[in-house]
Amino acid sequence: MTAMRPGGMIHGVGLGPGAQDLMSVRSDRLVRTARHVAYFRKAGRPGQARKIVEGMLRADVVEFPMEYPVTTEIPVSDPRYNDCLSAFYSRCIDHLAALASAGEDVVVLCEGDPFFYGSFMHLYTRLQTIAPVAVVPGITGMSGAWTASGAPITWGDDVLTVLMGTLPEADLVRRIRDTDALVVMKIGRHLDKLRRAVAAAGREDEAWLVEYAAMADQRVTRLCDADAITPYFSILLIHGQGRRP
Amino acid sequence: MTAMRPGGMIHGVGLGPGAQDLMSVRSDRLVRTARHVAYFRKAGRPGQARKIVEGMLRADVVEFPMEYPVTTEIPVSDPRYNDCLSAFYSRCIDHLAALASAGEDVVVLCEGDPFFYGSFMHLYTRLQTIAPVAVVPGITGMSGAWTASGAPITWGDDVLTVLMGTLPEADLVRRIRDTDALVVMKIGRHLDKLRRAVAAAGREDEAWLVEYAAMADQRVTRLCDADAITPYFSILLIHGQGRRP
Repeated sequence: MTAMRPGGMIHGVGLGPGAQDLMSVRSDRLVRTARHVAYFRKAGRPGQARKIVEGMLRADVVEFPMEYPVTTEIPVSDPRYNDCLSAFYSRCIDHLAALASAGEDVVVLCEGDPFFYGSFMHLYTRLQTIAPVAVVPGITGMSGAWTASGAPITWGDDVLTVLMGTLPEADLVRRIRDTDALVVMKIGRHLDKLRRAVAAAGREDEAWLVEYAAMADQRVTRLCDADAITPYFSILLIHGQGRRP
Repeated sequence: MTAMRPGGMIHGVGLGPGAQDLMSVRSDRLVRTARHVAYFRKAGRPGQARKIVEGMLRADVVEFPMEYPVTTEIPVSDPRYNDCLSAFYSRCIDHLAALASAGEDVVVLCEGDPFFYGSFMHLYTRLQTIAPVAVVPGITGMSGAWTASGAPITWGDDVLTVLMGTLPEADLVRRIRDTDALVVMKIGRHLDKLRRAVAAAGREDEAWLVEYAAMADQRVTRLCDADAITPYFSILLIHGQGRRP
């Protein structure tokens, strides 16, 4: 007769924007005590989530890097992109669920907040019915960015719009024109398009680019002074100017 | 001859959505070691920020509650509202700047994230030129809310719009119709208007109300099942349904 082991828990843990001490106390405790840690990364790269926790993990930690089979090689509109990622996520959850059913807790490291444009969500929705999953929110990358900019993002009744740089240019123009405060993420190769959209919306003088917010090489520049190539971890901001007594 | 004392620092410290262990490690350390702690509250109330840190403060802490002279008694459109708040903020910064120039550090407790629809911003902009100020971001109330809802707020290229319930009904309808994911804050007395706006935008079946996210009495209900009176700390969510392999 074998002893029954209670199932383990899979924790999606928000790490915040990058500085270790901007992690929540709950996330910090989970990361430091975890026996099993999983994280996404591009093949051959250390991975941003893993970099954030450098020096925090247990000596006997077991790491499970989940390497994207594809990032920008196949356009997202190609059905093969979805098929390929879908099969990848299935392999990931098979491993995580096997650990959980063996009674092991697993911490999945998530940059920023797990439920805000994160990759963990793809595991979460698949795991929900097969293993216990808990989510710890985190400080978003955009909070890191507006804090780095040294100015509040929203006041009073300001409308805040969050857009991805991947959207079509016409959509960007329309929405940038129609909001008080603005955050644009996933800029990367879309910087030129975004720059045109901000100009077409007549808001060039208000736009700031924050690169590597809350990290060692944090940089805040006016959009008009930004280099043509920006890192993936860059966020565009337009600060709201709402009611202020 | 008196010894020169270096000026103190005023820290605007994000406390996150409510649970103590969702505070960042940096905020936790600042709160626990602070000799001077300041926070906003409504006269006669304990104040939400102060409640979050209950049990964390030093035994010899000096507290400086900043009591709003007005909340909803004067309409925001009345010029007296701005005058009254402006004079109040001036009195607050006089006190904080005096502490800083006497060499004392001060921690100003901020619910959520200080630069995201917070009251601290009104002190920050006034203090910038007269005392050193640092800001620690926090997990926003909306992150607490979507985590409580058990579903990701945004996927892929989803557009997220953040609105205040105080906006005119027609604006609410138009913007709720025109977004993938939605967050509405400052609901309070505006619930009936908001309910009508969500219905007019044809999105009644997608809307959730999260009350007291990340706190002991957290509650998640469909908007259509919500009571007519909701607490101030309630947030409406519509989850994005964007690309997901």
